[in-house]
Amino acid sequence: MGETSALVLFSGGQDSTTCLAWALDRFDRVETVGFDYRQRNRVELDARPRVRAALAAAFPRWAGKLGDDHVLDLAALAAVSESAMTRDVAIAARADGLPNTFVPGRNLLFLIFAAALAYRRGIARLATGVCETDFSGYPDCRDDAIKALQVALNLGMATRLVIETPLMWIDKAATWRLARDLGGEKLVDLIREETHTCYEGDRAHRHDWGYGCGHCPACALRAAGYGAFRAAG
Amino acid sequence: MGETSALVLFSGGQDSTTCLAWALDRFDRVETVGFDYRQRNRVELDARPRVRAALAAAFPRWAGKLGDDHVLDLAALAAVSESAMTRDVAIAARADGLPNTFVPGRNLLFLIFAAALAYRRGIARLATGVCETDFSGYPDCRDDAIKALQVALNLGMATRLVIETPLMWIDKAATWRLARDLGGEKLVDLIREETHTCYEGDRAHRHDWGYGCGHCPACALRAAGYGAFRAAG
Repeated sequence: MGETSALVLFSGGQDSTTCLAWALDRFDRVETVGFDYRQRNRVELDARPRVRAALAAAFPRWAGKLGDDHVLDLAALAAVSESAMTRDVAIAARADGLPNTFVPGRNLLFLIFAAALAYRRGIARLATGVCETDFSGYPDCRDDAIKALQVALNLGMATRLVIETPLMWIDKAATWRLARDLGGEKLVDLIREETHTCYEGDRAHRHDWGYGCGHCPACALRAAGYGAFRAAG
Repeated sequence: MGETSALVLFSGGQDSTTCLAWALDRFDRVETVGFDYRQRNRVELDARPRVRAALAAAFPRWAGKLGDDHVLDLAALAAVSESAMTRDVAIAARADGLPNTFVPGRNLLFLIFAAALAYRRGIARLATGVCETDFSGYPDCRDDAIKALQVALNLGMATRLVIETPLMWIDKAATWRLARDLGGEKLVDLIREETHTCYEGDRAHRHDWGYGCGHCPACALRAAGYGAFRAAG
Protein backbone atom coordinates (compact mmCIF):
# COMPACT_ATOMS: atom_id res chain seq x y z
CA MET A 1 0.00 0.00 0.00
CA GLY A 2 2.86 2.36 -0.75
CA GLU A 3 3.95 4.41 2.25
CA THR A 4 4.00 2.75 5.65
CA SER A 5 0.99 3.80 7.64
CA ALA A 6 -0.68 3.01 10.94
CA LEU A 7 -4.02 3.51 12.64
CA VAL A 8 -3.69 4.31 16.36
CA LEU A 9 -6.45 3.58 18.86
CA PHE A 10 -6.41 6.97 20.54
CA SER A 11 -8.41 7.87 23.64
CA GLY A 12 -6.60 11.05 24.65
CA GLY A 13 -5.02 9.42 27.71
CA GLN A 14 -1.35 9.06 28.64
CA ASP A 15 -0.88 5.57 27.19
CA SER A 16 -2.55 6.12 23.83
CA THR A 17 -0.83 9.50 23.41
CA THR A 18 2.54 7.86 24.01
CA CYS A 19 1.52 5.17 21.54
CA LEU A 20 0.55 7.86 19.01
CA ALA A 21 3.95 9.56 19.42
CA TRP A 22 5.62 6.16 18.96
CA ALA A 23 3.69 5.63 15.71
CA LEU A 24 4.45 9.17 14.46
CA ASP A 25 8.12 8.49 15.08
CA ARG A 26 8.01 5.23 13.13
CA PHE A 27 5.49 5.48 10.28
CA ASP A 28 5.03 7.87 7.35
CA ARG A 29 1.33 8.41 7.86
CA VAL A 30 -0.70 7.98 11.04
CA GLU A 31 -4.47 8.14 11.44
CA THR A 32 -6.33 7.95 14.75
CA VAL A 33 -9.59 6.37 15.83
CA GLY A 34 -11.63 6.90 18.99
CA PHE A 35 -14.89 5.50 20.33
CA ASP A 36 -17.84 7.34 21.75
CA TYR A 37 -19.47 4.79 24.02
CA ARG A 38 -21.26 7.33 26.22
CA GLN A 39 -18.28 7.60 28.56
CA ARG A 40 -19.22 8.64 32.07
CA ASN A 41 -17.69 12.01 31.32
CA ARG A 42 -16.80 13.78 28.08
CA VAL A 43 -13.41 14.96 29.34
CA GLU A 44 -11.68 12.02 27.66
CA LEU A 45 -13.26 12.62 24.24
CA ASP A 46 -12.59 16.37 24.55
CA ALA A 47 -8.91 15.64 25.16
CA ARG A 48 -8.48 13.90 21.80
CA PRO A 49 -8.50 16.89 19.39
CA ARG A 50 -6.62 19.00 21.95
CA VAL A 51 -3.78 16.44 22.22
CA ARG A 52 -3.60 15.98 18.44
CA ALA A 53 -3.40 19.74 17.89
CA ALA A 54 -0.75 20.10 20.62
CA LEU A 55 1.36 17.31 19.08
CA ALA A 56 1.18 18.91 15.63
CA ALA A 57 2.07 22.34 17.01
CA ALA A 58 4.96 21.17 19.21
CA PHE A 59 6.52 18.70 16.76
CA PRO A 60 6.71 20.00 13.19
CA ARG A 61 8.37 16.73 12.11
CA TRP A 62 5.18 14.89 13.09
CA ALA A 63 2.60 17.44 11.93
CA GLY A 64 2.78 16.39 8.28
CA LYS A 65 2.33 12.73 9.14
CA LEU A 66 -0.78 13.12 11.27
CA GLY A 67 -3.73 12.05 9.12
CA ASP A 68 -7.47 11.83 9.63
CA ASP A 69 -9.14 11.33 12.98
CA HIS A 70 -12.18 9.02 13.16
CA VAL A 71 -14.69 8.84 16.01
CA LEU A 72 -17.06 5.88 15.92
CA ASP A 73 -20.35 5.89 17.80
CA LEU A 74 -20.59 2.80 19.98
CA ALA A 75 -23.94 3.41 21.66
CA ALA A 76 -24.42 -0.36 21.46
CA LEU A 77 -21.71 -0.76 24.08
CA ALA A 78 -23.78 1.31 26.49
CA ALA A 79 -26.82 -0.80 25.58
CA VAL A 80 -24.96 -4.01 26.44
CA SER A 81 -23.72 -2.42 29.64
CA GLU A 82 -27.30 -1.51 30.60
CA SER A 83 -28.67 -4.99 29.88
CA ALA A 84 -29.63 -6.64 33.15
CA MET A 85 -27.13 -9.11 34.54
CA THR A 86 -28.22 -12.42 35.93
CA ARG A 87 -27.53 -12.89 39.62
CA ASP A 88 -24.77 -15.46 38.98
CA VAL A 89 -22.93 -13.16 36.62
CA ALA A 90 -23.35 -10.14 38.87
CA ILE A 91 -21.75 -12.00 41.76
CA ALA A 92 -18.93 -13.28 39.56
CA ALA A 93 -18.31 -9.77 38.23
CA ARG A 94 -18.15 -8.33 41.75
CA ALA A 95 -15.61 -10.99 42.72
CA ASP A 96 -13.43 -9.75 39.83
CA GLY A 97 -13.47 -6.29 41.39
CA LEU A 98 -14.93 -4.85 38.19
CA PRO A 99 -17.96 -2.55 38.17
CA ASN A 100 -21.33 -4.09 37.34
CA THR A 101 -21.57 -2.01 34.17
CA PHE A 102 -18.38 -3.58 32.86
CA VAL A 103 -18.62 -4.87 29.30
CA PRO A 104 -16.13 -7.69 28.87
CA GLY A 105 -14.15 -7.79 25.67
CA ARG A 106 -14.46 -4.05 25.12
CA ASN A 107 -10.93 -3.77 23.78
CA LEU A 108 -11.57 -6.64 21.37
CA LEU A 109 -14.52 -4.67 20.00
CA PHE A 110 -12.44 -1.52 19.63
CA LEU A 111 -9.76 -3.50 17.80
CA ILE A 112 -12.18 -5.16 15.38
CA PHE A 113 -13.79 -1.81 14.52
CA ALA A 114 -10.32 -0.33 14.08
CA ALA A 115 -9.32 -3.26 11.87
CA ALA A 116 -12.38 -2.80 9.64
CA LEU A 117 -11.63 0.91 9.35
CA ALA A 118 -7.93 0.23 8.67
CA TYR A 119 -8.90 -2.21 5.92
CA ARG A 120 -11.03 0.43 4.21
CA ARG A 121 -8.29 3.04 4.62
CA GLY A 122 -5.58 0.78 3.17
CA ILE A 123 -3.66 0.69 6.46
CA ALA A 124 -1.95 -2.54 7.51
CA ARG A 125 -0.85 -1.67 11.07
CA LEU A 126 -2.91 -1.01 14.17
CA ALA A 127 -1.25 0.42 17.25
CA THR A 128 -2.80 0.31 20.71
CA GLY A 129 -1.50 1.32 24.13
CA VAL A 130 -2.74 -1.78 25.95
CA CYS A 131 -0.42 -3.09 28.61
CA GLU A 132 -0.46 -6.16 30.79
CA THR A 133 2.27 -4.99 33.16
CA ASP A 134 0.13 -2.67 35.28
CA PHE A 135 -2.54 -5.32 35.73
CA SER A 136 -5.87 -3.61 35.39
CA GLY A 137 -8.30 -6.51 35.67
CA TYR A 138 -8.96 -6.38 31.94
CA PRO A 139 -8.05 -9.69 30.33
CA ASP A 140 -8.57 -8.24 26.84
CA CYS A 141 -5.44 -6.11 27.34
CA ARG A 142 -3.27 -9.21 27.72
CA ASP A 143 -0.78 -10.28 25.11
CA ASP A 144 -2.40 -13.69 24.54
CA ALA A 145 -5.80 -12.11 23.83
CA ILE A 146 -4.33 -9.54 21.42
CA LYS A 147 -2.33 -12.14 19.51
CA ALA A 148 -5.28 -14.54 19.26
CA LEU A 149 -7.40 -11.65 18.01
CA GLN A 150 -4.83 -10.81 15.32
CA VAL A 151 -5.17 -14.37 14.03
CA ALA A 152 -8.98 -14.24 14.11
CA LEU A 153 -9.00 -10.86 12.37
CA ASN A 154 -6.66 -11.94 9.61
CA LEU A 155 -8.61 -15.16 9.01
CA GLY A 156 -11.94 -13.35 9.15
CA MET A 157 -10.88 -10.46 6.92
CA ALA A 158 -8.58 -12.42 4.59
CA THR A 159 -5.93 -9.78 5.13
CA ARG A 160 -2.54 -9.31 6.82
CA LEU A 161 -2.87 -6.81 9.63
CA VAL A 162 -0.41 -6.44 12.49
CA ILE A 163 -1.48 -5.21 15.93
CA GLU A 164 1.43 -3.26 17.45
CA THR A 165 1.48 -2.95 21.25
CA PRO A 166 4.53 -0.84 22.16
CA LEU A 167 3.50 -0.54 25.83
CA MET A 168 2.60 -4.19 26.43
CA TRP A 169 5.58 -5.06 28.63
CA ILE A 170 6.53 -1.74 30.21
CA ASP A 171 5.27 -0.14 33.40
CA LYS A 172 4.01 3.44 33.84
CA ALA A 173 7.45 4.80 34.75
CA ALA A 174 8.85 3.29 31.55
CA THR A 175 5.94 4.78 29.59
CA TRP A 176 6.99 8.26 30.76
CA ARG A 177 10.59 7.36 29.80
CA LEU A 178 9.46 6.22 26.35
CA ALA A 179 7.74 9.58 25.86
CA ARG A 180 10.95 11.41 26.81
CA ASP A 181 12.96 9.23 24.41
CA LEU A 182 10.52 10.02 21.60
CA GLY A 183 10.00 13.75 22.14
CA GLY A 184 12.15 14.91 25.06
CA GLU A 185 10.85 16.91 28.02
CA LYS A 186 8.61 18.78 25.58
CA LEU A 187 6.57 15.61 25.02
CA VAL A 188 6.56 14.78 28.73
CA ASP A 189 5.17 18.28 29.43
CA LEU A 190 2.57 17.93 26.68
CA ILE A 191 1.38 14.62 28.13
CA ARG A 192 1.20 16.11 31.64
CA GLU A 193 -0.74 19.16 30.48
CA GLU A 194 -3.03 17.87 27.75
CA THR A 195 -3.81 14.18 28.23
CA HIS A 196 -6.56 12.90 30.47
CA THR A 197 -6.57 9.70 32.52
CA CYS A 198 -8.67 10.38 35.67
CA TYR A 199 -11.78 8.16 35.98
CA GLU A 200 -13.64 11.03 37.64
CA GLY A 201 -13.13 13.42 34.72
CA ASP A 202 -11.49 15.89 37.11
CA ARG A 203 -9.60 18.74 35.35
CA ALA A 204 -9.80 21.08 38.35
CA HIS A 205 -6.88 19.70 40.34
CA ARG A 206 -3.35 20.14 38.99
CA HIS A 207 -0.44 17.92 40.09
CA ASP A 208 3.13 17.54 38.85
CA TRP A 209 1.97 14.52 36.77
CA GLY A 210 -1.07 16.28 35.29
CA TYR A 211 -4.75 16.94 36.12
CA GLY A 212 -7.08 14.62 38.00
CA CYS A 213 -8.82 13.85 41.27
CA GLY A 214 -5.61 12.27 42.57
CA HIS A 215 -7.49 9.45 44.31
CA CYS A 216 -9.00 7.14 41.68
CA PRO A 217 -7.00 4.07 40.56
CA ALA A 218 -6.07 5.74 37.24
CA CYS A 219 -4.71 8.84 39.00
CA ALA A 220 -2.86 6.71 41.56
CA LEU A 221 -1.18 4.67 38.81
CA ARG A 222 -0.25 7.75 36.80
CA ALA A 223 1.14 9.58 39.85
CA ALA A 224 3.17 6.60 41.06
CA GLY A 225 4.60 6.04 37.57
CA TYR A 226 5.58 9.69 37.25
CA GLY A 227 7.21 9.63 40.67
CA ALA A 228 9.24 6.53 39.80
CA PHE A 229 10.22 8.04 36.44
CA ARG A 230 11.53 11.22 38.06
CA ALA A 231 13.23 9.31 40.91
CA ALA A 232 15.16 7.22 38.36
CA GLY A 233 16.38 10.45 36.76
CA MET B 1 -25.49 -20.91 35.39
CA GLY B 2 -28.06 -23.61 36.16
CA GLU B 3 -30.18 -24.46 33.10
CA THR B 4 -28.51 -24.76 29.72
CA SER B 5 -29.05 -21.66 27.71
CA ALA B 6 -27.98 -20.14 24.41
CA LEU B 7 -27.95 -16.77 22.68
CA VAL B 8 -28.75 -17.01 18.96
CA LEU B 9 -27.58 -14.42 16.42
CA PHE B 10 -30.92 -13.95 14.72
CA SER B 11 -31.47 -11.85 11.59
CA GLY B 12 -34.90 -13.15 10.55
CA GLY B 13 -33.52 -15.00 7.54
CA GLN B 14 -33.74 -18.69 6.64
CA ASP B 15 -30.38 -19.68 8.13
CA SER B 16 -30.67 -17.90 11.47
CA THR B 17 -34.29 -19.07 11.88
CA THR B 18 -33.20 -22.68 11.32
CA CYS B 19 -30.39 -22.06 13.80
CA LEU B 20 -32.92 -20.67 16.30
CA ALA B 21 -35.13 -23.76 15.90
CA TRP B 22 -32.04 -25.94 16.41
CA ALA B 23 -31.24 -24.09 19.65
CA LEU B 24 -34.85 -24.27 20.88
CA ASP B 25 -34.77 -28.01 20.28
CA ARG B 26 -31.54 -28.40 22.27
CA PHE B 27 -31.41 -25.85 25.09
CA ASP B 28 -33.70 -24.98 28.00
CA ARG B 29 -33.66 -21.24 27.46
CA VAL B 30 -32.89 -19.33 24.26
CA GLU B 31 -32.45 -15.60 23.83
CA THR B 32 -31.94 -13.82 20.50
CA VAL B 33 -29.86 -10.86 19.41
CA GLY B 34 -30.04 -8.79 16.22
CA PHE B 35 -28.14 -5.82 14.86
CA ASP B 36 -29.46 -2.62 13.39
CA TYR B 37 -26.68 -1.45 11.12
CA ARG B 38 -28.89 0.71 8.88
CA GLN B 39 -29.61 -2.22 6.58
CA ARG B 40 -30.46 -1.16 3.05
CA ASN B 41 -34.03 -2.12 3.78
CA ARG B 42 -35.95 -2.68 7.01
CA VAL B 43 -37.64 -5.85 5.78
CA GLU B 44 -35.03 -8.01 7.49
CA LEU B 45 -35.40 -6.32 10.89
CA ASP B 46 -39.19 -6.40 10.56
CA ALA B 47 -39.06 -10.15 9.99
CA ARG B 48 -37.41 -10.81 13.37
CA PRO B 49 -40.39 -10.29 15.75
CA ARG B 50 -42.76 -11.85 13.20
CA VAL B 51 -40.68 -15.05 12.98
CA ARG B 52 -40.26 -15.26 16.77
CA ALA B 53 -44.03 -14.87 17.27
CA ALA B 54 -44.79 -17.45 14.58
CA LEU B 55 -42.39 -19.97 16.15
CA ALA B 56 -43.94 -19.50 19.59
CA ALA B 57 -47.48 -19.84 18.19
CA ALA B 58 -46.75 -22.90 16.03
CA PHE B 59 -44.58 -24.81 18.52
CA PRO B 60 -45.91 -24.75 22.10
CA ARG B 61 -42.95 -26.91 23.20
CA TRP B 62 -40.63 -24.08 22.22
CA ALA B 63 -42.73 -21.10 23.32
CA GLY B 64 -41.76 -21.42 26.98
CA LYS B 65 -38.06 -21.57 26.16
CA LEU B 66 -37.96 -18.46 24.00
CA GLY B 67 -36.45 -15.69 26.12
CA ASP B 68 -35.62 -12.02 25.59
CA ASP B 69 -34.83 -10.50 22.23
CA HIS B 70 -32.08 -7.86 22.04
CA VAL B 71 -31.49 -5.43 19.16
CA LEU B 72 -28.19 -3.56 19.26
CA ASP B 73 -27.67 -0.34 17.34
CA LEU B 74 -24.56 -0.60 15.18
CA ALA B 75 -24.62 2.77 13.46
CA ALA B 76 -20.82 2.65 13.69
CA LEU B 77 -20.84 -0.12 11.10
CA ALA B 78 -22.51 2.24 8.65
CA ALA B 79 -19.95 4.91 9.56
CA VAL B 80 -17.09 2.55 8.76
CA SER B 81 -18.83 1.55 5.55
CA GLU B 82 -19.15 5.22 4.56
CA SER B 83 -15.51 6.04 5.28
CA ALA B 84 -13.70 6.70 2.03
CA MET B 85 -11.64 3.84 0.67
CA THR B 86 -8.18 4.40 -0.70
CA ARG B 87 -7.80 3.59 -4.37
CA ASP B 88 -5.70 0.47 -3.66
CA VAL B 89 -8.29 -0.96 -1.32
CA ALA B 90 -11.19 -0.08 -3.61
CA ILE B 91 -9.58 -1.96 -6.48
CA ALA B 92 -8.79 -4.95 -4.25
CA ALA B 93 -12.38 -4.99 -2.97
CA ARG B 94 -13.79 -4.94 -6.48
CA ALA B 95 -11.57 -7.87 -7.45
CA ASP B 96 -13.18 -9.81 -4.56
CA GLY B 97 -16.57 -9.23 -6.13
CA LEU B 98 -17.79 -7.56 -2.96
CA PRO B 99 -19.57 -4.20 -2.96
CA ASN B 100 -17.50 -1.13 -2.13
CA THR B 101 -19.54 -0.53 1.02
CA PHE B 102 -18.50 -3.94 2.36
CA VAL B 103 -17.22 -3.87 5.95
CA PRO B 104 -14.83 -6.76 6.44
CA GLY B 105 -15.06 -8.69 9.66
CA ARG B 106 -18.72 -7.79 10.18
CA ASN B 107 -19.58 -11.23 11.54
CA LEU B 108 -16.66 -11.02 13.97
CA LEU B 109 -18.14 -7.78 15.31
CA PHE B 110 -21.58 -9.35 15.66
CA LEU B 111 -20.07 -12.29 17.53
CA ILE B 112 -18.06 -10.13 19.95
CA PHE B 113 -21.12 -8.00 20.76
CA ALA B 114 -23.14 -11.19 21.22
CA ALA B 115 -20.42 -12.62 23.46
CA ALA B 116 -20.39 -9.51 25.65
CA LEU B 117 -24.18 -9.66 25.91
CA ALA B 118 -24.10 -13.41 26.64
CA TYR B 119 -21.56 -12.81 29.40
CA ARG B 120 -23.83 -10.28 31.06
CA ARG B 121 -26.85 -12.57 30.68
CA GLY B 122 -25.05 -15.60 32.14
CA ILE B 123 -25.24 -17.53 28.87
CA ALA B 124 -22.32 -19.76 27.87
CA ARG B 125 -23.33 -20.72 24.31
CA LEU B 126 -23.64 -18.60 21.20
CA ALA B 127 -25.29 -20.04 18.10
CA THR B 128 -24.92 -18.57 14.64
CA GLY B 129 -26.10 -19.72 11.21
CA VAL B 130 -22.82 -18.99 9.41
CA CYS B 131 -21.88 -21.53 6.77
CA GLU B 132 -18.84 -21.98 4.62
CA THR B 133 -20.42 -24.52 2.26
CA ASP B 134 -22.35 -22.06 0.10
CA PHE B 135 -19.30 -19.85 -0.35
CA SER B 136 -20.46 -16.29 -0.01
CA GLY B 137 -17.20 -14.36 -0.29
CA TYR B 138 -17.26 -13.64 3.43
CA PRO B 139 -14.13 -15.05 5.07
CA ASP B 140 -15.51 -14.28 8.55
CA CYS B 141 -18.10 -17.03 8.04
CA ARG B 142 -15.39 -19.67 7.70
CA ASP B 143 -14.75 -22.29 10.34
CA ASP B 144 -11.13 -21.21 10.93
CA ALA B 145 -12.15 -17.60 11.60
CA ILE B 146 -14.94 -18.63 14.00
CA LYS B 147 -12.70 -21.00 15.95
CA ALA B 148 -9.86 -18.47 16.19
CA LEU B 149 -12.39 -15.91 17.41
CA GLN B 150 -13.65 -18.28 20.10
CA VAL B 151 -10.09 -18.51 21.43
CA ALA B 152 -9.60 -14.72 21.30
CA LEU B 153 -12.95 -14.15 23.03
CA ASN B 154 -12.28 -16.61 25.81
CA LEU B 155 -8.80 -15.21 26.42
CA GLY B 156 -10.05 -11.63 26.25
CA MET B 157 -13.09 -12.19 28.46
CA ALA B 158 -11.53 -14.75 30.81
CA THR B 159 -14.55 -16.96 30.27
CA ARG B 160 -15.56 -20.25 28.60
CA LEU B 161 -17.94 -19.53 25.78
CA VAL B 162 -18.69 -21.93 22.94
CA ILE B 163 -19.71 -20.70 19.48
CA GLU B 164 -22.09 -23.26 17.96
CA THR B 165 -22.38 -23.30 14.15
CA PRO B 166 -24.94 -26.00 13.26
CA LEU B 167 -25.05 -24.96 9.58
CA MET B 168 -21.28 -24.65 9.00
CA TRP B 169 -20.89 -27.75 6.82
CA ILE B 170 -24.31 -28.18 5.23
CA ASP B 171 -25.68 -26.71 2.01
CA LYS B 172 -29.00 -24.92 1.54
CA ALA B 173 -30.87 -28.11 0.64
CA ALA B 174 -29.63 -29.70 3.87
CA THR B 175 -30.66 -26.56 5.78
CA TRP B 176 -34.27 -27.08 4.59
CA ARG B 177 -33.95 -30.76 5.60
CA LEU B 178 -32.66 -29.80 9.05
CA ALA B 179 -35.70 -27.54 9.49
CA ARG B 180 -38.01 -30.44 8.56
CA ASP B 181 -36.19 -32.75 11.00
CA LEU B 182 -36.61 -30.19 13.79
CA GLY B 183 -40.22 -29.11 13.20
CA GLY B 184 -41.68 -31.07 10.30
CA GLU B 185 -43.43 -29.49 7.31
CA LYS B 186 -44.92 -26.96 9.73
CA LEU B 187 -41.48 -25.44 10.28
CA VAL B 188 -40.63 -25.59 6.57
CA ASP B 189 -43.86 -23.68 5.84
CA LEU B 190 -43.13 -21.13 8.56
CA ILE B 191 -39.67 -20.49 7.13
CA ARG B 192 -41.07 -20.13 3.60
CA GLU B 193 -43.78 -17.71 4.71
CA GLU B 194 -42.17 -15.62 7.43
CA THR B 195 -38.40 -15.44 6.98
CA HIS B 196 -36.70 -12.94 4.72
CA THR B 197 -33.53 -13.46 2.68
CA CYS B 198 -33.84 -11.32 -0.50
CA TYR B 199 -31.16 -8.60 -0.81
CA GLU B 200 -33.69 -6.33 -2.51
CA GLY B 201 -36.14 -6.44 0.40
CA ASP B 202 -38.83 -7.68 -1.99
CA ARG B 203 -41.97 -9.08 -0.25
CA ALA B 204 -44.22 -8.56 -3.28
CA HIS B 205 -43.31 -11.69 -5.21
CA ARG B 206 -44.30 -15.08 -3.83
CA HIS B 207 -42.57 -18.30 -4.88
CA ASP B 208 -42.74 -21.89 -3.61
CA TRP B 209 -39.61 -21.17 -1.52
CA GLY B 210 -40.88 -17.88 -0.08
CA TYR B 211 -40.95 -14.17 -0.96
CA GLY B 212 -38.29 -12.25 -2.86
CA CYS B 213 -37.21 -10.69 -6.12
CA GLY B 214 -36.16 -14.12 -7.39
CA HIS B 215 -33.06 -12.73 -9.12
CA CYS B 216 -30.55 -11.58 -6.48
CA PRO B 217 -27.85 -14.02 -5.31
CA ALA B 218 -29.67 -14.65 -2.00
CA CYS B 219 -32.94 -15.52 -3.76
CA ALA B 220 -31.09 -17.70 -6.29
CA LEU B 221 -29.37 -19.65 -3.51
CA ARG B 222 -32.58 -20.06 -1.51
CA ALA B 223 -34.56 -21.17 -4.56
CA ALA B 224 -31.92 -23.67 -5.74
CA GLY B 225 -31.63 -25.12 -2.22
CA TYR B 226 -35.41 -25.51 -1.92
CA GLY B 227 -35.57 -27.18 -5.35
CA ALA B 228 -32.83 -29.66 -4.44
CA PHE B 229 -34.50 -30.34 -1.06
CA ARG B 230 -37.85 -31.18 -2.70
CA ALA B 231 -36.20 -33.16 -5.51
CA ALA B 232 -34.48 -35.38 -2.92
CA GLY B 233 -37.87 -36.05 -1.32
